[in-house]
Amino acid sequence: MDEELNVVIREAIPDDAEEILAMSKIIGQETEFLVMDEKGMGLDVEDLAYQLAALYDSPNNILLVAVLDAAIIATASVRADSSRRIGHIGEVGISVLQEYWGIGLGTMMLEELIHWAEAGGVIRRLELTVQCRNERAVSLYKKFGFATEGTLARGARSDGGEFLDVYLMSRMID
Amino acid sequence: MDEELNVVIREAIPDDAEEILAMSKIIGQETEFLVMDEKGMGLDVEDLAYQLAALYDSPNNILLVAVLDAAIIATASVRADSSRRIGHIGEVGISVLQEYWGIGLGTMMLEELIHWAEAGGVIRRLELTVQCRNERAVSLYKKFGFATEGTLARGARSDGGEFLDVYLMSRMID
Repeated sequence: MDEELNVVIREAIPDDAEEILAMSKIIGQETEFLVMDEKGMGLDVEDLAYQLAALYDSPNNILLVAVLDAAIIATASVRADSSRRIGHIGEVGISVLQEYWGIGLGTMMLEELIHWAEAGGVIRRLELTVQCRNERAVSLYKKFGFATEGTLARGARSDGGEFLDVYLMSRMID
Repeated sequence: MDEELNVVIREAIPDDAEEILAMSKIIGQETEFLVMDEKGMGLDVEDLAYQLAALYDSPNNILLVAVLDAAIIATASVRADSSRRIGHIGEVGISVLQEYWGIGLGTMMLEELIHWAEAGGVIRRLELTVQCRNERAVSLYKKFGFATEGTLARGARSDGGEFLDVYLMSRMID
């Protein structure tokens, strides 16, 4: 299916800013599983382009995009702080346009992120939070060796105002 | 003891920026318990003054300073995201100059933060991470009703390069 679709996964560059912002607004509306809501990333194109350049050069940050027919349909990132004391901790985030759920994009991108972390030697812990009800995502992370370290009470809120439990999951990188 | 010292606890204003930066650099050197290292906050005075003005106006963010003889000797904060989905989650951070450890400043400031959160009605979950070895801080948080939700393997790294366990603690606000 991936080959049929001709999806290319590559690192984001500053020129992707406009496409990424457009995608983030759609995704923020489509799913309640993410922190980001319909306002999207809350950035303008110039700010994001500037951030993408910095990410591209960073040894412990990465943003991947999945591109289909020149459109970005998914992103996957590892974000880490510049501090020496926590610079080895990378937070994983994956967003896929709803139309492309269930075709293995999450699997492909997470695999890439883990390879990148293992090759870099800077990131030694990957972590993420995921709503407990997001079973598809929880299974994906478990498949790639993430373990649940705790459950956050009121870790998120649905658009209806209901508090939701959230898992904190992590995977060591050695 | 607090009265002898004449410590005033109040909300930070933009004019405090220079003092806060000076304090943050000392604290980053003094203690390995914080994420912030000897580089301090990595901001200039103007940027921080601008952020302090925004914090002052925010319904779900606060920064308290403890002032002794016109010098800032401790800070305590609750930081929250603007997103609707996690805007009810406040991250607690407390920093006290080493010279003033053990005289109850942490207790006074944490009490203030909890009162502020309860009065505001926006924050419904307070959370924090704390190195497991920082027993003084862990006791303080427990005394104020924080419970451990999980232990983060490699949640921090000492200046010697050793990985440290970190607790994720939280307290609901109702």
